[in-house]
Formats: sequence, structure tokens, C-alpha cells
Amino acid sequence: MSASPGEVSEGGNIAACTSTPATMRAVQLRAYDGNAKSIAVVELPVPRPGPGQVLIRVAASPINPSDLMFIRGLYGFKKPLPAIPGFEGSGTVVEAGSGMMPRFLKGRRVACAAADPNIAGGMWAEYLVTSAQLCVPLSKQVDMEQGATMLVNPLTALALMEEARLGRHRAIVQTAAASALGRMVVRLSQKFSIPTINVVRRAEQVDLLRKMGAEHVLNTSDPGFDASLAGLCHRLGASIGFDAVAGEMSARVLRAQPRGSRLLVYGALSLEASQIDPASLIFEGKRVEGFWLTAWLRQRNMLSQLRVTRHVQQMLAGDLQTEIRARLPLKEIAHGLEQYASKMTGGKILLLPLTQC
Amino acid sequence: MSASPGEVSEGGNIAACTSTPATMRAVQLRAYDGNAKSIAVVELPVPRPGPGQVLIRVAASPINPSDLMFIRGLYGFKKPLPAIPGFEGSGTVVEAGSGMMPRFLKGRRVACAAADPNIAGGMWAEYLVTSAQLCVPLSKQVDMEQGATMLVNPLTALALMEEARLGRHRAIVQTAAASALGRMVVRLSQKFSIPTINVVRRAEQVDLLRKMGAEHVLNTSDPGFDASLAGLCHRLGASIGFDAVAGEMSARVLRAQPRGSRLLVYGALSLEASQIDPASLIFEGKRVEGFWLTAWLRQRNMLSQLRVTRHVQQMLAGDLQTEIRARLPLKEIAHGLEQYASKMTGGKILLLPLTQC
Repeated sequence: MSASPGEVSEGGNIAACTSTPATMRAVQLRAYDGNAKSIAVVELPVPRPGPGQVLIRVAASPINPSDLMFIRGLYGFKKPLPAIPGFEGSGTVVEAGSGMMPRFLKGRRVACAAADPNIAGGMWAEYLVTSAQLCVPLSKQVDMEQGATMLVNPLTALALMEEARLGRHRAIVQTAAASALGRMVVRLSQKFSIPTINVVRRAEQVDLLRKMGAEHVLNTSDPGFDASLAGLCHRLGASIGFDAVAGEMSARVLRAQPRGSRLLVYGALSLEASQIDPASLIFEGKRVEGFWLTAWLRQRNMLSQLRVTRHVQQMLAGDLQTEIRARLPLKEIAHGLEQYASKMTGGKILLLPLTQC
Repeated sequence: MSASPGEVSEGGNIAACTSTPATMRAVQLRAYDGNAKSIAVVELPVPRPGPGQVLIRVAASPINPSDLMFIRGLYGFKKPLPAIPGFEGSGTVVEAGSGMMPRFLKGRRVACAAADPNIAGGMWAEYLVTSAQLCVPLSKQVDMEQGATMLVNPLTALALMEEARLGRHRAIVQTAAASALGRMVVRLSQKFSIPTINVVRRAEQVDLLRKMGAEHVLNTSDPGFDASLAGLCHRLGASIGFDAVAGEMSARVLRAQPRGSRLLVYGALSLEASQIDPASLIFEGKRVEGFWLTAWLRQRNMLSQLRVTRHVQQMLAGDLQTEIRARLPLKEIAHGLEQYASKMTGGKILLLPLTQC
């Protein structure tokens, strides 16, 4: 299929637009106050890539929970205002800065991330400059829509699973287990035959996970939750934990895990500091660390990145598929944010800036 | 010098008493309520060592902050009641269970620890059975009094310093820096030329540390404390932290440290859970771990233990000297606890059970 202006390139090496315009449309955030009036669609100059960077023409970008937190000023970092939100997406590399990786990526379809305080731009725009290290070339069988949601959930799930497998942990305990990412961890753990202990907060989430075949699902509001959690963690040997909640939940999981366990905090849905029992650290040799995909990607060399990202792409149509609920142009951003905030499960909302290419 | 009943053996290999009696006097804790009436001196059978264990005739044992916390039920673990308190001390190994280490220790003067939920006894008694792994042979130049206080402060300070040196950390940040242990860390850091950033809570503690030659001392109650702490931690590269306070203090230190730092929690003077900012873990690659001398000793083989404990003993008369404030027989335990609780700085109070040998 040959590319022409106005279409998403499916071929991989051919840019859909023959030249880059001087200006672009972008969603602009003017205050970290969560107010709809602080977000507008504006016309801005198209940025130029520096050394190690690439210019991407954006095809699609989802609204993720981390985007909502960023907009409200509740994320782990802020970018200088006015800022362009949108932490992940897909697109085509239309211009390359100096360096081997940018040159390699030129013309390719990529999944990419802007979830880094050092990346000035964001994905909710027609164009974006980002680090070549935060771009992952897309295989032919992966379309721009699945590619757009590949990093924050599927690749994070696979990266967490790699931590569990490389550390030879016998079982995994995870919080927020019914989230899109949590369910991907469940599916991967079934594939790799590593038992998961799944912690959720509502009865319908227990049902959802049981229907997926999850054997061990615990509801924090059940009586005896902490004792059951500790019993399971010890019996199965859940010496690695994935925590997206933080607050008091971090302490409850760490306390339940066996001696010498690791807890990887990758989110803070409770918006609270992780409470860590000093006795768990001192007398039981447990450790608390963070997990951040951006850092994980940067730490890897290109070959290792290619290996793991190829692996994740092979699973995007199966275990790691993301459900798409709606597709919107940039100008409907306010509507999209409202819709997503009111119902965060049941599929992603995608922004498609390219429809204005 | 030859040993005779009623004296502390200084020779190393000769037991001071020719035979072990059937019963002993010991301090007995009956409730974890911090009430003076819950503590009494009683007559109990002398325990017998099992495999890997030794029987020690106790020469001296200090009252430490961790003992006060244990008695009040605020320590990280409890022993079954009635229990014998006393987490560290010195004495002579008078009987050995099976195993190479117990046999090696038989007849020797040792420093030893009972700070482990698996050790039934405690040091505030005439006799104690403990694991041979928790005993350190004393050199000739170290007397029973300095030996009695060798583990909880001097060896912990040296072990923490080893963590800093082996990890090639450029500088150290520590809380509770004016404590006996904190001051030992300051002296060791001067010896090893590793800068320390010392966090204290009162102006007189700032003066105390400055008089010792500590260059960087910060008072948490000073305005701009957090900014100064972050500035110093980044400038000096304090990528390892020692925290004895926990609570909010853990978060403040971890936030101030540079990217990729480690925080070792070894105490919880605040009696609160460590508050850990998820952003520090996730976006800055920082880690929180515990440090416990008991586990640290158990992890080492005998040679490595001998090396580090010889090193610490060479410094007991100098950088790692402990000041002794008072010496009491067991029957004055209530008085001793009261005195120590009312003033925890200014020297250790030692219990000397052997005066009844």
C-alpha cells in the first residue's frame, strides 16, 4: 500500500507527508489545575530534532490514567507551562537529528513515549520531538492504533514480568490487579506459568479476574484480608510485588511477603506516600524500589530493546491486546477527557491528530 | 593473669568458674507495657546449648535504646513472655553445642547478641544461650566492658561504613547524627575521608557535632532545611543514606538524595512508618532497604566476620570508644532503666551480672 497525504502510512519506510509544515495543531495545557478551561487546541511551530532526537508525525495517542494525573499536577513530575500532554502514542519518524539511532529510525513507524521531564513536547499534537531512545520501531503486523498503546501497558507488563523471571521469583503479588495493566500481568503469568496473587478493592473485580482464570484473587475489603494475603504470599513464595497503589497498600503487601522480598512501586493511584514498616526493612531484609518504563528503556541497548519490543508486538493481537473504545480528533480533547475520567475501564480513548495532516 | 571465681577472665581461654550451676538470676519481662512492675529479677534454670549454640556466662550488658523499645513492645519483634531482655553484652563461652563454631568459641571471651526473635534468652542474666554466629571473639586488648557495647554501636557503625565504601558512594547522609552511633559514623567517615551530611533536630546537637569536626550539620527545624539538604546531597554525591528515625524523615532524606540513591533504614526512633514518596522510587530510581546487624553477621562466613570484628576491636579504644556512665548489678535494673530513659546521651549504663558468680 503506497502512502498519500491524509493517510496513515502502513508500509513502514515511506513518510505519509512529503514535507513537514511550519506549524502544527496541539493540545496545550496552561495550568495544572484539572480545569477544562486550562486546556485548549492551539497552533504552534513544528519543533526540530536535536542530536539523538527524532521528529514524529503523530498517528494516534491514548488518554491514560497517567495523563489525567499529569494534567491535574499530581504526576511525579511537571513540565514547564504551557505544556503539551500525551505520554505515549504512535507515528512516523519524518526527520532525524544526528546519531545512529535517529538515522536508523528515519521513515519508520514507531511507538514512542514523551513521559519524561526532559522531553518538552507531548503526543497530543500533530508533531512531536522525542529521544530516539524512547521510540520503538513497529512491526508490519502492528497497526498504529495498537502501536499507540503499546508502551504504557503492554511493554510495562512484559518488563515487570521479565523482572520476575530474571530474579527467579516463584510467584508475584500485585495490587490494582483488575486494571488494564494488571490484567495483562495476569495473562502473561498464565503464559509463563508464574502464579499471581491478585489484590483488588471491589467484588466485581474479583469476578472479572476469576473469569480470566486467575486462581488467587483477594479483596482488600474482605475480613481477614491481611492474614490471607500473608498466607498465600508465603505458601507460593511471592518474593516480588508490583504495586500501583502506594499509600498504606505498599505496607500491607510488603508485610505479607516472605523474607528478602522486593516490592516494585510503579504507580500511586492512592495519591499517597508509600507507608513502609521499618520492621519489614530491618528485620526481614525486604526492599522497596520503583519501576519506570522510561528509565527501563533508556538502560537497554538497542539490541536488547529490539528483542523485548519484538516480543511484545507478537503478543499485541493476543495476550497484550488493548481494547479501543473511541477515536477522536484533537479538537474533541475536552470531551474525551471528560468521558475517560468518568469511566476509566472498558477500553481506551484514542486521539488521532493525523486526520488533519 | 589467671582467672578465679568472682573475677572477669582476661586471659581468653580459661573459664572463670569451674562448673556451671543449675540455676541463675535473670531479669524477667512479664508484659510489654513499659510498666516497672512488669520487670523482676528471678531465679531460673540455666539453659543448655543446642547444635550451633553456646552457653555464655555474662560479664556485662548495656541498656540500649533498642532494649527500651523492646520492653515497651515497640521493637520490630517480640519474644514469647516471660522473656529475658538485653540485646547485647560480653561474657565467656562456658559450654558449646555441636558444630565447628561452638567448639572454636569454647572458653573464649566474646561479645554477643541476643537481638533475634529466634534467640529465646537475653543478656540481662547470669547465663545465656545464643547462636555461635552471633558471637564475636574478643581480642586481649579489649576488656569486657568495651566488649559488651561493641556490636550495637561500634560494629554497626563500621558495617554501615563498609556499605558506603564497597558501594563506592562519594558521600553519606545520616539522620540522628548526634546519637552514639551517629557520632561513630562521623569519626569513621573522618578516618576514611568520606564526607557525611549530618541531620539533627536540636541546636546543641549541631554544636556537639561541629566540635567533633563535622563539616556539614543540618538542623531539621531550621528554615530552608529541605533545600539545604538537597543542595548538599547533590553537590557531595550522598548516594547512600543511613536513617534511624523513619516516619516523615525517611521521605525527606530520600527526596534530597541524588538519582539512583540507596536509603538504609536501621532504626525507627519516630515510632512511625517510613513515608516514601513514590516519585522518588519511580522517577529517580531510588531504593529503600533495611540494615540489621544480626542479619549482616549471619550472612558472613567466619573469616570475613573475624576480619571486620578485629578491625572494630582495634578502634574500640579510639574512634569507636563507648563512654560508660554507671555499672549496676542485676537487682538494680529498675533504677537503671529509669536513669537511662531520663537521659539517653552521656554514656551507657552497664549491668554486671557476673558480680554474683
